[in-house]
Amino acid sequence: MATPLNIGMIGYGFMGRAHSNAYRKVNNFFELKHRPVLKAACARDKDKIQAFADKWGYESVETDWRKLIERKDIDAVDICVPNNLHCEMALAAAAAGKMILCEKPLAMNSAEGAKMVEAVEKAKVANTVWYNYRRVPAVTLTKKLIDEGKLGKIFHYRANFLQDWTISADLPQGGTGLWRLDVAAAGSGVSGDLLAHCIDTAIWLNGSIANLSAMTETFIKERKHTLTGKVEKVGIDDACQFMCRFGNGALGLFESTRYARGHKALYTFEINGEKASIKWDLHDLHRLQYFDHKDEGRLRGWRSIHVTDGDHPYMGNWWVPGLQIGYEHSFVHHVADFLECLAKGEPCQPDFRNALGTQQVLDAILDSAKKGTWVDVNKG
Amino acid sequence: MATPLNIGMIGYGFMGRAHSNAYRKVNNFFELKHRPVLKAACARDKDKIQAFADKWGYESVETDWRKLIERKDIDAVDICVPNNLHCEMALAAAAAGKMILCEKPLAMNSAEGAKMVEAVEKAKVANTVWYNYRRVPAVTLTKKLIDEGKLGKIFHYRANFLQDWTISADLPQGGTGLWRLDVAAAGSGVSGDLLAHCIDTAIWLNGSIANLSAMTETFIKERKHTLTGKVEKVGIDDACQFMCRFGNGALGLFESTRYARGHKALYTFEINGEKASIKWDLHDLHRLQYFDHKDEGRLRGWRSIHVTDGDHPYMGNWWVPGLQIGYEHSFVHHVADFLECLAKGEPCQPDFRNALGTQQVLDAILDSAKKGTWVDVNKG
Amino acid sequence: MATPLNIGMIGYGFMGRAHSNAYRKVNNFFELKHRPVLKAACARDKDKIQAFADKWGYESVETDWRKLIERKDIDAVDICVPNNLHCEMALAAAAAGKMILCEKPLAMNSAEGAKMVEAVEKAKVANTVWYNYRRVPAVTLTKKLIDEGKLGKIFHYRANFLQDWTISADLPQGGTGLWRLDVAAAGSGVSGDLLAHCIDTAIWLNGSIANLSAMTETFIKERKHTLTGKVEKVGIDDACQFMCRFGNGALGLFESTRYARGHKALYTFEINGEKASIKWDLHDLHRLQYFDHKDEGRLRGWRSIHVTDGDHPYMGNWWVPGLQIGYEHSFVHHVADFLECLAKGEPCQPDFRNALGTQQVLDAILDSAKKGTWVDVNKG
Amino acid sequence: MATPLNIGMIGYGFMGRAHSNAYRKVNNFFELKHRPVLKAACARDKDKIQAFADKWGYESVETDWRKLIERKDIDAVDICVPNNLHCEMALAAAAAGKMILCEKPLAMNSAEGAKMVEAVEKAKVANTVWYNYRRVPAVTLTKKLIDEGKLGKIFHYRANFLQDWTISADLPQGGTGLWRLDVAAAGSGVSGDLLAHCIDTAIWLNGSIANLSAMTETFIKERKHTLTGKVEKVGIDDACQFMCRFGNGALGLFESTRYARGHKALYTFEINGEKASIKWDLHDLHRLQYFDHKDEGRLRGWRSIHVTDGDHPYMGNWWVPGLQIGYEHSFVHHVADFLECLAKGEPCQPDFRNALGTQQVLDAILDSAKKGTWVDVNKG
Repeated sequence: MATPLNIGMIGYGFMGRAHSNAYRKVNNFFELKHRPVLKAACARDKDKIQAFADKWGYESVETDWRKLIERKDIDAVDICVPNNLHCEMALAAAAAGKMILCEKPLAMNSAEGAKMVEAVEKAKVANTVWYNYRRVPAVTLTKKLIDEGKLGKIFHYRANFLQDWTISADLPQGGTGLWRLDVAAAGSGVSGDLLAHCIDTAIWLNGSIANLSAMTETFIKERKHTLTGKVEKVGIDDACQFMCRFGNGALGLFESTRYARGHKALYTFEINGEKASIKWDLHDLHRLQYFDHKDEGRLRGWRSIHVTDGDHPYMGNWWVPGLQIGYEHSFVHHVADFLECLAKGEPCQPDFRNALGTQQVLDAILDSAKKGTWVDVNKG
Repeated sequence: MATPLNIGMIGYGFMGRAHSNAYRKVNNFFELKHRPVLKAACARDKDKIQAFADKWGYESVETDWRKLIERKDIDAVDICVPNNLHCEMALAAAAAGKMILCEKPLAMNSAEGAKMVEAVEKAKVANTVWYNYRRVPAVTLTKKLIDEGKLGKIFHYRANFLQDWTISADLPQGGTGLWRLDVAAAGSGVSGDLLAHCIDTAIWLNGSIANLSAMTETFIKERKHTLTGKVEKVGIDDACQFMCRFGNGALGLFESTRYARGHKALYTFEINGEKASIKWDLHDLHRLQYFDHKDEGRLRGWRSIHVTDGDHPYMGNWWVPGLQIGYEHSFVHHVADFLECLAKGEPCQPDFRNALGTQQVLDAILDSAKKGTWVDVNKG
Repeated sequence: MATPLNIGMIGYGFMGRAHSNAYRKVNNFFELKHRPVLKAACARDKDKIQAFADKWGYESVETDWRKLIERKDIDAVDICVPNNLHCEMALAAAAAGKMILCEKPLAMNSAEGAKMVEAVEKAKVANTVWYNYRRVPAVTLTKKLIDEGKLGKIFHYRANFLQDWTISADLPQGGTGLWRLDVAAAGSGVSGDLLAHCIDTAIWLNGSIANLSAMTETFIKERKHTLTGKVEKVGIDDACQFMCRFGNGALGLFESTRYARGHKALYTFEINGEKASIKWDLHDLHRLQYFDHKDEGRLRGWRSIHVTDGDHPYMGNWWVPGLQIGYEHSFVHHVADFLECLAKGEPCQPDFRNALGTQQVLDAILDSAKKGTWVDVNKG
Repeated sequence: MATPLNIGMIGYGFMGRAHSNAYRKVNNFFELKHRPVLKAACARDKDKIQAFADKWGYESVETDWRKLIERKDIDAVDICVPNNLHCEMALAAAAAGKMILCEKPLAMNSAEGAKMVEAVEKAKVANTVWYNYRRVPAVTLTKKLIDEGKLGKIFHYRANFLQDWTISADLPQGGTGLWRLDVAAAGSGVSGDLLAHCIDTAIWLNGSIANLSAMTETFIKERKHTLTGKVEKVGIDDACQFMCRFGNGALGLFESTRYARGHKALYTFEINGEKASIKWDLHDLHRLQYFDHKDEGRLRGWRSIHVTDGDHPYMGNWWVPGLQIGYEHSFVHHVADFLECLAKGEPCQPDFRNALGTQQVLDAILDSAKKGTWVDVNKG
């Protein structure tokens, strides 16, 4: 019988639901030494957190996150709150000796991130950051293929994350569901929210980024603020794009925006190697596009791989070939890997240190965009 | 707090897992008056059913399905066993006053199916058949669009279900995982297994089928039988295709096979109406292809609708726009609807009577293929 | 310097233009021993044929096709008129010792077709039928792949040809541009017009068809006739579908219609073999979809081959890799092959005898649809 | 009867063929007041140019381009030679009062380009630059849609041009077919060859570019030079990418490379507007992807428009709906428009002045890449 691992969840929004679902499902599909127990959920609003707890089966609720962290019966703290709270909570949780599963991006900036790394490493607590897209089977397969050398030398890496939900000038900033538009809560706009995913994947797949030149744009300069009721300056980046060089010599091109009409959550990447190329996109996350130059000349073409077979990463644990899984499953895989790493005493990537690398690129992006120059990524 | 509904599950295979997952998840995502409780799971093999129960959280196990059905603490029986057992179990469950959720196809033939309909109607127990694809959001949306008249008069309906997993002559028939190749257990091959889905959807979307001309083929005539150890004649249809006329005058064309190299579980349909057309396929189940003749001439084209918005059927209960759900969610939707119908005292479609319609088409198919003539579908 | 081959063109419609363009272009792109000379064009309407001749550079015009055929300076007659005139013209041209390039389908029925075959074989004149789709590079490549054994045993062949241009009941029948709706001129509807293409390709790729069961439908029963001015019964088939067995044991499924809203000229085929499968469609005629089971399991997928490389059939004669050719080029290829065969003294396929095979299937289709039974294809 | 326009062609390579084909075909498909006559073709190698002239029907040949330009019977000079010769030839042709059709890019740089503009404007001769992609029907349709306001305010413009034909280090530089790798002949690499197309289209569709930040890369630093026989430094850019701001406030992102394994000639662009978005790519040039936010919410999706209808730009002159044209037709359209403009006494865009705008962006790109800074585009 699997050992219980008591989860203390802070937050109850979109990510709170996604993580809770993952905790509940993981042992139905994966053979693991541990099983997450939904011990307590925490938020300031008592009614809301109680309703959330009822819906998901959390055994208890708290309204003070410090109290949650101090509870003896909590093994791991899951931080699912706006970015400006990550650092403080993580420091407290580490100090209390709790494992930490922190939503991305790690922090508001790499200064905060560095403190968080120091804290968890000093406390020697298991830690991970929810860059969930690494564990979409098609993306995990990409990592394997690159590591096996199937692509050879990489020439180009391009990625974008396109959305269109903030085009209306009537959309306010701040408050529930809209904190991503509020620079005080989010730290940045699409760079921290969307590009962070692209960068995490890119570093994982193609190694570190050496230097970059970035630009940002805020198309709608003022929006009503939900919390103050006033029209206020928008402090986040609505769009952000950058060119870069990777440590391995590859050229990178990245873009994200919430003004790309027609795209809801289109995260895409393409990698061009000497021997083969790969493309993937989140709107059809169960497919991988693969081009292999070794194929007979007349018959070369991009293969559309339906990543649903038993020999595809994670897929042997689900249904039968041809049947898709969806977005939520990437979180289940993350929990499964976290628990497996826990059993083995290994870090579960991306851990805080690893995720700090993405934070450093994010800092460089905002710095470059502000200065209008190329900047080196500070590997601190 | 939702009222418990105690489930007694018979079987623990692929469908046993899919249904169990649905029961466990449904209340996390849907507001319902009832909540399924995994009360007992049943199979002849004690060790296997215990392992299954442990994995999914069933409170108890049984090794005799008759005993399960008799248990006072079971409200609903879920029949997840090979087709040749459906009838007997359903009759017993109805006699015991249990609700029944029966895997598709309803029965081995329409004679059996008719008995089952009679039994549940006499016993006045809630009943439904797991034709899950109706509740893929894109398919449900199709139903709405047709009902709203967006397509106008329907001229053509074509569907196929293509797989490729039985091409090897070395694959045996019979036994766990392979009972679908054994005519004694399955009753038929691709017609009952795959075309049954196509027919259920077709009747739902386009009304009844009047008459048809069918052909079947068994490409590999003999296979080793797992249970007897001997090479035996293969009694199922490896491939089946038929032409038909619907009651509304539309022409139909259907095909299914397990010899279509390159397709894992490619269920597709296309409907051509006077005003608009629709296409869907299971390999990208979160998309719907829609062509509307009303669009401005220069700008007409097939729209690839990413069926992941809050105003798409069922999708408001899941994540945010752009994020896919998968195969398993169709079962969650079925349970949600079953419970909602239960609360309202309405039948949950397809109920046994409705599913009998598909069975009658299946009978006509095998009859036509055998005789080599057109046959009317017996609406008996 | 290439030897002139004097062309006498009968007709000036859509096909008259397509063929004339092919004659004019072929020597710019292919090295050939002959070069077509646009010697004379013929039609009853003097003004119209003169305008056509001026546009395309025909040296002279005729208004009596019998006179054209008798001209000493004509080497080859191109028959580009409605189906009901093919036989009479071909017999006369053969009698006059002219080569014949005849539009498809060969004839109104196989009785006529047999006479035409007899005539050209007796006269020993070069002859070919314009089933142009064989010479779309992706289709020609398919033929090569099958002949090389890449697909192995063929299990399934399915094809359809979908259009939507006759859905309006206001469209009249008969007369210029609309003779395809007039049974007196066309002989049949979609079967002779569209399925004829599908059948020609199918027989070429997969061998002869043994027997079949077909159905036809005329959705709009009466249309105004352009020539008589009266509302008259529609004698053609608006839609036609059939199931069949090929001589090699493969199952076939074919459909064509002019009531498939959203499809302009969507000719598609898919072939499922033991080792590999192939798909093609006319709306993206420069692509071939190819699935090879030999590919490594994790990386198997349908390849979308952009058939524009120098090692693809015919493509070395055009531009550079990645640049598409279009519909009209299939006719250029046909002329190139006709001239090459002429130089070698070989028949250019499909010749009349070969095209008679398609006519026999068409006869069987109409016969089966009328009787409502399976019929053997008469290979008479 | 159309007035002859005598063409003097300089060059006989890929573009010489594409233009010759266009001159030969244009009057078969378009009603025009002029008709091109292939009067003379010119190249240094007498045998080669004679073979070319024979193949295409040029009436005569020249081996000295100055002599061709001086010929009284030449009305228009077509410059189809490497970039380093454009300026000199154009100046001479203008001085001789000839119309000029010049291959793209206009010149080696904008200094040269400015001289060419001055020359043709002073001489008042008709002039145009072969940026042929403007006249792919789907691209022309895009222009119309933007001009009609269908997209509303533009937020993003992204384009790339991806090829993979120079990945091998064994490929030499210089000489026939390889002058594009030789900086002395080409002036630059992918920027002038490929990005030039992207920029021309972008300025046409979205207005001028204000400033940009670019980077270039030469992956393979040395290649054998065909003309010298020695291994020499490669002076061209193998890859080039840049970010920019358009005058209208839109953000731009551009990339081109010859190291994108799997792409032969994949020119793509995507434009995101407030109301609608558009995507296009050269590998399926007959399609346009269009997303309209005005569509009913549930039914919004990217439309794949098969740009082959009579109401699509240029398409009424070709075949019937559903039948594709190809790459070569963009040149036919350019000639048709050139002749129509000639008849009306209007400039045919892009004329030299217009094409100078693209040259100024190209200069800014190379300047920015060299300096590693943002630069303003000199509209000098």
